Amino acid sequence: MRRIRLGMVGGGSDAFIGGVHRIASRIDGHYDLVAGALSSTPQRAKASGEALGLDPARSYGSFEEMAEAEAARKDGIEAVSIVTPNHVHFAAAKPFLERGIHVICDKPLTATLEDAEAMEKAVAASDALFILTHNYTGYPMVRQAQDMVADGAIGTLRLVQIEYPQDWMTDDVESQGVKQAEWRTDPARSGAGGAIGDIGTHAFNLAAFVTGQVPDRLAADLHSFGAGRALDDNAHVMLRYASGARGMLWCSQVAPGCENGLRLRIFGEVGGLEWAQEEPNSLWYTPHGEPTRRITRNGAGATEAGNLVSRIPAGHPEGYLEAFATLYSEAAEAIRAAQGGQPRSALMGKLPGLSAGLDGMAFIRACVTSSRDDAAWVTI
Amino acid sequence: MRRIRLGMVGGGSDAFIGGVHRIASRIDGHYDLVAGALSSTPQRAKASGEALGLDPARSYGSFEEMAEAEAARKDGIEAVSIVTPNHVHFAAAKPFLERGIHVICDKPLTATLEDAEAMEKAVAASDALFILTHNYTGYPMVRQAQDMVADGAIGTLRLVQIEYPQDWMTDDVESQGVKQAEWRTDPARSGAGGAIGDIGTHAFNLAAFVTGQVPDRLAADLHSFGAGRALDDNAHVMLRYASGARGMLWCSQVAPGCENGLRLRIFGEVGGLEWAQEEPNSLWYTPHGEPTRRITRNGAGATEAGNLVSRIPAGHPEGYLEAFATLYSEAAEAIRAAQGGQPRSALMGKLPGLSAGLDGMAFIRACVTSSRDDAAWVTI
Amino acid sequence: MRRIRLGMVGGGSDAFIGGVHRIASRIDGHYDLVAGALSSTPQRAKASGEALGLDPARSYGSFEEMAEAEAARKDGIEAVSIVTPNHVHFAAAKPFLERGIHVICDKPLTATLEDAEAMEKAVAASDALFILTHNYTGYPMVRQAQDMVADGAIGTLRLVQIEYPQDWMTDDVESQGVKQAEWRTDPARSGAGGAIGDIGTHAFNLAAFVTGQVPDRLAADLHSFGAGRALDDNAHVMLRYASGARGMLWCSQVAPGCENGLRLRIFGEVGGLEWAQEEPNSLWYTPHGEPTRRITRNGAGATEAGNLVSRIPAGHPEGYLEAFATLYSEAAEAIRAAQGGQPRSALMGKLPGLSAGLDGMAFIRACVTSSRDDAAWVTI
Amino acid sequence: MRRIRLGMVGGGSDAFIGGVHRIASRIDGHYDLVAGALSSTPQRAKASGEALGLDPARSYGSFEEMAEAEAARKDGIEAVSIVTPNHVHFAAAKPFLERGIHVICDKPLTATLEDAEAMEKAVAASDALFILTHNYTGYPMVRQAQDMVADGAIGTLRLVQIEYPQDWMTDDVESQGVKQAEWRTDPARSGAGGAIGDIGTHAFNLAAFVTGQVPDRLAADLHSFGAGRALDDNAHVMLRYASGARGMLWCSQVAPGCENGLRLRIFGEVGGLEWAQEEPNSLWYTPHGEPTRRITRNGAGATEAGNLVSRIPAGHPEGYLEAFATLYSEAAEAIRAAQGGQPRSALMGKLPGLSAGLDGMAFIRACVTSSRDDAAWVTI
Repeated sequence: MRRIRLGMVGGGSDAFIGGVHRIASRIDGHYDLVAGALSSTPQRAKASGEALGLDPARSYGSFEEMAEAEAARKDGIEAVSIVTPNHVHFAAAKPFLERGIHVICDKPLTATLEDAEAMEKAVAASDALFILTHNYTGYPMVRQAQDMVADGAIGTLRLVQIEYPQDWMTDDVESQGVKQAEWRTDPARSGAGGAIGDIGTHAFNLAAFVTGQVPDRLAADLHSFGAGRALDDNAHVMLRYASGARGMLWCSQVAPGCENGLRLRIFGEVGGLEWAQEEPNSLWYTPHGEPTRRITRNGAGATEAGNLVSRIPAGHPEGYLEAFATLYSEAAEAIRAAQGGQPRSALMGKLPGLSAGLDGMAFIRACVTSSRDDAAWVTI
Repeated sequence: MRRIRLGMVGGGSDAFIGGVHRIASRIDGHYDLVAGALSSTPQRAKASGEALGLDPARSYGSFEEMAEAEAARKDGIEAVSIVTPNHVHFAAAKPFLERGIHVICDKPLTATLEDAEAMEKAVAASDALFILTHNYTGYPMVRQAQDMVADGAIGTLRLVQIEYPQDWMTDDVESQGVKQAEWRTDPARSGAGGAIGDIGTHAFNLAAFVTGQVPDRLAADLHSFGAGRALDDNAHVMLRYASGARGMLWCSQVAPGCENGLRLRIFGEVGGLEWAQEEPNSLWYTPHGEPTRRITRNGAGATEAGNLVSRIPAGHPEGYLEAFATLYSEAAEAIRAAQGGQPRSALMGKLPGLSAGLDGMAFIRACVTSSRDDAAWVTI
Repeated sequence: MRRIRLGMVGGGSDAFIGGVHRIASRIDGHYDLVAGALSSTPQRAKASGEALGLDPARSYGSFEEMAEAEAARKDGIEAVSIVTPNHVHFAAAKPFLERGIHVICDKPLTATLEDAEAMEKAVAASDALFILTHNYTGYPMVRQAQDMVADGAIGTLRLVQIEYPQDWMTDDVESQGVKQAEWRTDPARSGAGGAIGDIGTHAFNLAAFVTGQVPDRLAADLHSFGAGRALDDNAHVMLRYASGARGMLWCSQVAPGCENGLRLRIFGEVGGLEWAQEEPNSLWYTPHGEPTRRITRNGAGATEAGNLVSRIPAGHPEGYLEAFATLYSEAAEAIRAAQGGQPRSALMGKLPGLSAGLDGMAFIRACVTSSRDDAAWVTI
Repeated sequence: MRRIRLGMVGGGSDAFIGGVHRIASRIDGHYDLVAGALSSTPQRAKASGEALGLDPARSYGSFEEMAEAEAARKDGIEAVSIVTPNHVHFAAAKPFLERGIHVICDKPLTATLEDAEAMEKAVAASDALFILTHNYTGYPMVRQAQDMVADGAIGTLRLVQIEYPQDWMTDDVESQGVKQAEWRTDPARSGAGGAIGDIGTHAFNLAAFVTGQVPDRLAADLHSFGAGRALDDNAHVMLRYASGARGMLWCSQVAPGCENGLRLRIFGEVGGLEWAQEEPNSLWYTPHGEPTRRITRNGAGATEAGNLVSRIPAGHPEGYLEAFATLYSEAAEAIRAAQGGQPRSALMGKLPGLSAGLDGMAFIRACVTSSRDDAAWVTI
């Protein structure tokens, strides 16, 4: 099984998510990172490339240069990871899409709706695959939850309770040199959503992935508790689904004691399911009127949907990086199939792509619109 | 320490809450139950009285009869517990209040606003104490949480996340002979609120008790998932506080896997607190930037506010009945002080009373009004 | 249902366990405490009686005096609770047993084997019931565990892991005025066992109660970590059962972070069960090859054995005092049946009595003997 | 940073641990797997090599052949992973050690004491590094625990409670085609210890790693519950340390509901620590007399010892594979330093090596000896 040649845009030394993508690409051995435009500052890009052991000739000062040069090489990259701040996603993805190089892009799709539409067109015009790393969908027990819901384990869906609290922006860290906070609080780089764009979209996507439903209306109350913060750092959202289901979504960056508290609880006519990202190897299932079961990854009660993306036996915890790697590995499989001539439309499987990205953008827009209108109901 | 002579209205054999009140009254040895009008059906009332070992002469067919007869006795009751469905609260409390007999009343205050206003007047006109059993405020770690918030442990309040999910009405139990469900789904007996009145008021009260703040505006989305159910069995509420804090409240009777999941999480500028009713002996405290602490009832880190209402050492779990008993015991202390001539206004201490009841009624009304107006913001 | 007239020996103001017994006797309304010899110091006994509201004429300076006087009254006590330090148990129980007054005695049975034998004879010679408050057997989920084991839920028993760590004697508290520690570290008052007698017997009893088996051999390593402490404050014990099962028992008073950590895990050929006293409303059950279930008190999956001794619905936590009260209530039932003329031998039901006490004494002796012989195997 | 060329002995398609080593070697990007002798059956070895994408010329039929051929190549492997059953460890490691190729070997060291001694000599005679993958020492919170103990966080050590229960051998799986169980129950391939060798050594090593102490005496009760099983599937061990500390160790393969339940609890004069492998991102710390703290990986309260081997922020769970990868990455660092000419003796850092392996062998021997002598105390 030949490894896929991978490039990366963004992800220099200060970045958190770049390192995550690199590890994720290595875990299952499907990729070799061979090229990069790792920073918007050319000098920094070079230094980061050196630190990662890239061939200096393939450590580029800009993504355009990289796209052109790599496309011209016989051994050029076959796929590229876009791990920049949101406002660069489209510009960075474009030259690669145009050259048929597969794109693995961090979420949310873009910073602006204009960019999102442009991305949609660029993807449509390209033969390349476009994968959006809504990484939480790679967790085995999330896969199992999706499978169980589809199989009727909870019956007709009634309630969705989804939350994603963090605490790292409780203080004014964007003024204290925390780069992750700097761009996330800057509308020019993040887009119109703060917490709602950064983590709310993950929560929204996770609920949609598991339930198979997207709400059609919402009422949102976004707020910034951090003094002078231009974007929301906390969001309360009420959800209504066309099916009659209802829900609530909470995300926050200012909730002391919460590290990365993504948690999904869903309830139907005949059962309930609960999953928490910080203890991801367990899925709690209650068939109504029976005791709650703890189903464990690869353990008793685990089904194929999750086992397929598990690596090791029950009791040996897998975590965030493995879930992320699952997206990379499924992307590798899709890329190989695409290279083998299979039609792109049939290859995405459970991978989140453009459509999940557009849903996320619509969600952000709806939240911002609703909140500006004092939490009026808005159609997504 | 002489025991207080107690009567009870409601609480016959089928009732859940009557038995709870009786145990709560016994735990600390402050009361003797000596009289009752235990059912609205005289025959049933007699049978229940006999089962409880009441003197048959003091097992009455109606509360009016009981109030009159007991007031006429030298050894008549000094206090009465009202544990009927909501729509009877006022009518039952009235004859006792008029005769200066102290009233311990289950929540919510009444079924209707008219009754609530009448209750307010009756209490004002009486010398008797009026205690409303928002029993969750009796938990030691709730007392400690209140104390810590007041002492600045979490700093300026930013966020309130309060939830109270249950699952016992997932199915149409009101048609299957479950008496608790019958009256709770009947507007004539429960009032305008279903879940929001039955358990939402507890959640609302708990948050207010701990934070010392009541939201001034809310937007509520009430819904009945049970087919043909006249009252809400699920409620989503967004909260805004005059202080700038914001919050969410969720209560449900149709969430499979949730038994009595009252849980409060609050976050301020410098810390967070979490408490869950189903594991009530722990309080989780995070000073921002430090590890989370598990503070245990009567254990290391426990302070006087909780220790005062604890009975046994840390590690020996106290539960729901002890918390309920604390209200009864504090009521006993207040009653004795009132009998000793102290002014009623100074005696309530941490006991919930008329004011908490009126807050709860205002909360129910605001939720119902908002929900009818498609979750518009309503001033409480 | 007439209340039983109860007396108490020991349990004055400084004592922990006396207060527990009093609350336990009140919770279900089966007893009235009407007499006491609450302290070995007559003056203190009087003061404690006054604080508890006893008729001064029935607050005695000694248990002998109390036994004689009460037996002579028409309205004398029908039962007595013995809540003194261990070395007084026999002497205190004797005069009541001789007069046919039922005895509810704290554990362990006695401080010495001589006393235990004497107690055995005194009980045999009496018409009164003798109940030993191994209170942990009163927890509903312990009852359910016993029931499930008997029903074959875990198949043939293989393994018993039982532990009971505490931390309150980590420091030299017996020199700092902590009365509970003073007598527990004094062989003259506690007997030959320290931790092993105080809490090891509870652990031993719990395992025996649930599994229905008592080990026949053990190897024990007792140790005192507290400098100069005459009795063990930590015990490691390996167990062998005649059935072929094996086990370990650990108890400690010097394990920081452990409050009252009694926990039982048992494993058989087809399943496993786990129960922890600090979260007593859950029982964790794993049928081998299936997901673990959380069975809750009075909840889905709960069976009659536990429901019979539950008071309130699932999700409303019951705790230590309720479990203790269950023994008192079952004792009341037995006492009434005895008063009704039923033969004593048929009345004990699930109540621990002399036989459990003698088992506990044999366990302590075996542990001490084994430990003195460098943890050699000893037949219990 | 050039990648290290890695070979592998064992780890063909049916094996669990081979796949783990391969992922671990990839996570941090320090190795390229370029050669293998993946099975003792040459044909199977070839097939496995092909499945892994090895150059067919470097997929060998035996480890001797591989050692000779790779040593002769300019681009030959620099290190080799030995992931065979225990009885092959020495024979497989030998030819590589003789040729100066660094060895990363699975635990326990060997199946027999003779092999262990031979391994000791072979390592002494070689310039190569020898790393034993006691992988649980790679968990960040284990590193932090070690660091805290060394810094006096719990004071003088008193108690060690270590357990490692599993349930996968509850049934007679070795007769049902489960290869992992076949060799683990075969003394010829596993050595004299069953559960005690397979997982007991991990537990023993973990306790030693964290406390910095190895017990000097033990009394062990090994047992096979599986009918006809030649090796122990459950072990109870009492421990005594020269320092005066005492402990218990339990490991089991027949405990239904336990997946991979390695858990360490240690208690000293001034504090306690608890860590459980199945929730590895938390470390529970109790300074005696204060509330228990939950310290999280890379979170508030985490110190350098753990942060150094963390990859991602708090709340994003790392797991088993990351901990395993940490050993590989530290090995890479050591190998590079050795290649740079630094003396081998200074390079092992926190890496477990021969000495940990010999300790483990001594532990197994002592347990087997003690158990044969009816759990007599044996010096390790």
